[in-house]
Amino acid sequence: MPEISKRGQSVPMSPFRKLIPFADQAKARGKHVYHLNIGQPDIPTPPKALERVRQTDMKVLAYGPAVGNLSYREKLVDYYRQFEIEVTPDQIIVGSGASESLQILMFACFNQGDEVIVPEPFYANYNGFAQIGDVTIRPITTHINDGFALPSIEAFEEAINERTRGIMITNPNNPTGCVYSKDVLLALGALAKKHDLFLICDEVYREFCFDDNEFFSVLNIPELQDHAIIIDSISKRYSACGARIGAIVTRNEVLLSSLTRYVKLRLSPPGLGQILAEATLEMGPDYLTEVKEEYDRRRSVVFKRLQNMPGVISYLPGGAFYCFAKFPIDDADRFCQWLLEDFEHKGATVMLSPGAGFYASPNMGYDEVRMAFVLNTNDLEKAMDCLEIALQVYPGRVVAKQAEAALRNK
Amino acid sequence: MPEISKRGQSVPMSPFRKLIPFADQAKARGKHVYHLNIGQPDIPTPPKALERVRQTDMKVLAYGPAVGNLSYREKLVDYYRQFEIEVTPDQIIVGSGASESLQILMFACFNQGDEVIVPEPFYANYNGFAQIGDVTIRPITTHINDGFALPSIEAFEEAINERTRGIMITNPNNPTGCVYSKDVLLALGALAKKHDLFLICDEVYREFCFDDNEFFSVLNIPELQDHAIIIDSISKRYSACGARIGAIVTRNEVLLSSLTRYVKLRLSPPGLGQILAEATLEMGPDYLTEVKEEYDRRRSVVFKRLQNMPGVISYLPGGAFYCFAKFPIDDADRFCQWLLEDFEHKGATVMLSPGAGFYASPNMGYDEVRMAFVLNTNDLEKAMDCLEIALQVYPGRVVAKQAEAALRNK
Repeated sequence: MPEISKRGQSVPMSPFRKLIPFADQAKARGKHVYHLNIGQPDIPTPPKALERVRQTDMKVLAYGPAVGNLSYREKLVDYYRQFEIEVTPDQIIVGSGASESLQILMFACFNQGDEVIVPEPFYANYNGFAQIGDVTIRPITTHINDGFALPSIEAFEEAINERTRGIMITNPNNPTGCVYSKDVLLALGALAKKHDLFLICDEVYREFCFDDNEFFSVLNIPELQDHAIIIDSISKRYSACGARIGAIVTRNEVLLSSLTRYVKLRLSPPGLGQILAEATLEMGPDYLTEVKEEYDRRRSVVFKRLQNMPGVISYLPGGAFYCFAKFPIDDADRFCQWLLEDFEHKGATVMLSPGAGFYASPNMGYDEVRMAFVLNTNDLEKAMDCLEIALQVYPGRVVAKQAEAALRNK
Repeated sequence: MPEISKRGQSVPMSPFRKLIPFADQAKARGKHVYHLNIGQPDIPTPPKALERVRQTDMKVLAYGPAVGNLSYREKLVDYYRQFEIEVTPDQIIVGSGASESLQILMFACFNQGDEVIVPEPFYANYNGFAQIGDVTIRPITTHINDGFALPSIEAFEEAINERTRGIMITNPNNPTGCVYSKDVLLALGALAKKHDLFLICDEVYREFCFDDNEFFSVLNIPELQDHAIIIDSISKRYSACGARIGAIVTRNEVLLSSLTRYVKLRLSPPGLGQILAEATLEMGPDYLTEVKEEYDRRRSVVFKRLQNMPGVISYLPGGAFYCFAKFPIDDADRFCQWLLEDFEHKGATVMLSPGAGFYASPNMGYDEVRMAFVLNTNDLEKAMDCLEIALQVYPGRVVAKQAEAALRNK
């Protein structure tokens, strides 16, 4: 029997999906599962955009341009202008989701063995994309006590060595919901410029900034013409995860030329998804305003409920639709599996993403989980009911044990 | 300015698309371009399948399973059964086109520096996928004088060294149209078994076997349970290149487990494209029968016309919809560019793919081109008119020069 490759054996399992077999078994036994494990919103995809797909009258579903349809890229130019990001259609490369875009970027920006600095916890699949690209993620740990704010510029600078070729961030952040301010980003930009590093920013949640958090794009950092790269996707803002339409945007012409060669190898991004994506950009702002308000309400529900759960450490996320919380548990992997296998409240349970997969550093996040606010407030309350009771009865609960130990010692 | 990676600088340009700027300029000047350069058929996508997309009434275009929708994979099981290929839905991994599937396979099967034997000329983008995977293609050259038949098993065996981990073929072949017989494939399978190599076969043209050529799948080679892998796509058989739906099919459970982890990183294949793909499998055989007859007619047109062009060496391809011919020219890159820039016949010209990109060996294919029979016979005749006249007047023609030299020497 031929052996598969070493990299094929070690490629990381997505933490969002590794518990799926247990969820399937739970459902097969009749248990309802509230999915907070994956950023798959229950928000309807814009009906007008879906209607455009239904109205398509093409004869041949042909290859499109490798870099994406020009008409779509032209509309994206107008879309970005709303955020004062000035780019041309030639500076946009449409990908099969942000996932493909990130992967191609690994190849085009970095050589094998190069390092990219990423604040952790980070979007877990970065670990897999880095492994595919043979790139090393050098993590800088952020902490729950300040809502996972970016570390100081000094911390970034200390992490730079002769192999460092880039800094990669997600703003607003997945999994923490942290939004990075203009000042912080300008300082990071100055560092990227000083050390001639690519500054890659995954900005797929830019619409979802709450309270007084304001979105600022790395493409708007002056003098970062050749260093700044954004990753984008329609999946979250238009609840169109299945369309698989993302993008890379940069003004670096050498990089654009290389990326173009990479995307030509896979011929073109999904054709039907691009019809939908283009249609989303022809709608007014009402859809996104409503969606943002809905996520804001959900954020309040999760925050309030977590605040009232003993031993849970949490915070109010400033953006996106995630919260990364610390639980009074022995092991989040075990807890999340137990939720699916052994726990039930009113015929239901909740599915969460265990924290460890969101770190590159070892032994981190073992008592943390990511929750995605992708259910309506009614379901979210029920999911929080499950979580609240689960944390009281989970055999591996840590606060309880500490309390018991304290009682015994009296 | 940050430098892009070395691999990003050297990633090969797709030979199907590198002349596109010249084609665009020709069109801008009002010239009609007959595109024989890319396997983009003019055949209508099955109207019933497109209708299914139009009838979709989903509310949320959500992520699907990473390995593809179960309902689609179940129908694929029935589809493969028509070719006596017995597989289960779990042995099928749906990809974003054969391109993505091939790329993931490079990672899962091979380590960096491993070698895979590929008969050349081969589908040109294999060069790019191998570069991305840091895998070395060891080419075995096939020749036009026997219609690019596979070399002897001894030639394959001689190419095997300690780094060899696989053999990759395309059957029916792109770019040559050669169909490999059951006997040849059984012998190749025995070799793969003997040396414990993966035998990867790109079978996207399996419907298009003409005359007495019969299709035989590597998945039907006995005792190759863990070695055989097929690559598939709906792009060609259903003229749905823009859907971006492909597949990997194998019975190797360790490989399937690794591939599943890879595809989970990119979440899911295109959702709308899968609706179309599933619908194609619910139609009767009439569509494909008609399409095959149409390609057969086109094949005859191209063969007959090429036979009558002085100095052109050609053959009757047994399958697929390509012909790889040798022209009496100095350099196919130059000739193909000249066709777009400097040549015109009745307001039109023809676009072809230069041959060198289909080889891994240096200095091969410089006087060869690939032609795709993707236009109706009427347009194909006009394209052949252009080609016939172009070969007479091209300044870099070689036969003419030899003839002139012969005349002078008289």
